[in-house]
Amino acid sequence: MPSSPAEAQLDIADLVVGVLGGTGDQGRGLARRFGLAGSEVLIGSRSADRARSIARDLPVATGMDNTECAARADLVIVAVPWDSHAALLSEVGGELAGKIIVDCVVPMGFDKRGAHALDVPEGSACLQAQQICPMSRVVGAFHHVSAALLLDPSVPRVETDVMVVGDDRAATDAVIELVGTIPGMRGIYAGRLRNSRQVEALTANLISINRRYRVHAGLRVTDVPGIPAH
Amino acid sequence: MPSSPAEAQLDIADLVVGVLGGTGDQGRGLARRFGLAGSEVLIGSRSADRARSIARDLPVATGMDNTECAARADLVIVAVPWDSHAALLSEVGGELAGKIIVDCVVPMGFDKRGAHALDVPEGSACLQAQQICPMSRVVGAFHHVSAALLLDPSVPRVETDVMVVGDDRAATDAVIELVGTIPGMRGIYAGRLRNSRQVEALTANLISINRRYRVHAGLRVTDVPGIPAH
Repeated sequence: MPSSPAEAQLDIADLVVGVLGGTGDQGRGLARRFGLAGSEVLIGSRSADRARSIARDLPVATGMDNTECAARADLVIVAVPWDSHAALLSEVGGELAGKIIVDCVVPMGFDKRGAHALDVPEGSACLQAQQICPMSRVVGAFHHVSAALLLDPSVPRVETDVMVVGDDRAATDAVIELVGTIPGMRGIYAGRLRNSRQVEALTANLISINRRYRVHAGLRVTDVPGIPAH
Repeated sequence: MPSSPAEAQLDIADLVVGVLGGTGDQGRGLARRFGLAGSEVLIGSRSADRARSIARDLPVATGMDNTECAARADLVIVAVPWDSHAALLSEVGGELAGKIIVDCVVPMGFDKRGAHALDVPEGSACLQAQQICPMSRVVGAFHHVSAALLLDPSVPRVETDVMVVGDDRAATDAVIELVGTIPGMRGIYAGRLRNSRQVEALTANLISINRRYRVHAGLRVTDVPGIPAH
């Protein structure tokens, strides 16, 4: 596992959070919630103009291109569409050595029968990220969080658990703490990167649940104490 | 999809539930809960003697060999270890034409770093079952339910949702209803068989959660109304 001088002294409140692909619904929603929770948030996009335009409508966020976002952030959330995942990480990976990459990308296709998980040669989006960025600390999280709820100003608390997967204990601990800054959300350690594929792919099942029950489904893990009251 | 005359008239209360591989923890636990809930339960095992011995310790269950269990049951739960899955279904599949097969088998390996999902040539255990038994109605369910909780007499309610996957609407509806006969449990339709792999594999993540937090984790799906109070 890569180790950096920052590893022992991660202070979540002071982390600058960059959202790569921050102009899509999931990225925008997470940027919004982290801004509201008090983090400094940078929105990255292929187009700096588009990023700046999106950032203007969000609390406490600044827009820029993905490379500048990667360079300036302490931790990045990767929220691009799956078909841009490898290209984005190859492009900005040089800026991410030693940093935590929070990958929330889901390799998924859609047809008339709904969503379905796609096979990934590296095993999963997270494993692909770790292969492209071997000096970064890859953590999977936020796959199951509804963008609609993240973006809905009438939803003060996002009542859901977030499965956090990764091989670097300090990095997963930091992401669990970061998740917990959003009211209602709780981060749960859910295994190593070799078990990331099914966490990503389960998003297709949540989409099936949403279609059947006309809801914005999320998950709570039972028996783990400490569902947040704040 | 296979269709049978029984499709329109499944009466859950009258179904005879067979548990193939019913002497393992998961099978025994499900047999126990369905017996307590009022179903007639048949326990199947390679050894009829062993099945009878296990059944004696359970409420309302009868033991027999797997083939007789498959022949006499209206619906079977497959709860054998993964390495017996294909062989069992090939052996007893002839008795299962037109019947619902509820598959709760998880293709999973263990090493010193814990549990990990295994690749399956057919895509998943459920898809393998449907390939071996094309005239049966395969439904995936109960993967995430803790055998320890199912078997614990001090646990009156098993507070968890059960993700139910399958391509046959009447069959998934019947299994959802059957799940709901166990106090605390709720069945949730969670997609088609092509999305069964990640539901099975997520069991490895729940085992990681159990190890980290020293719990018997289960899942609740948020936003879907109707968590059972009975």
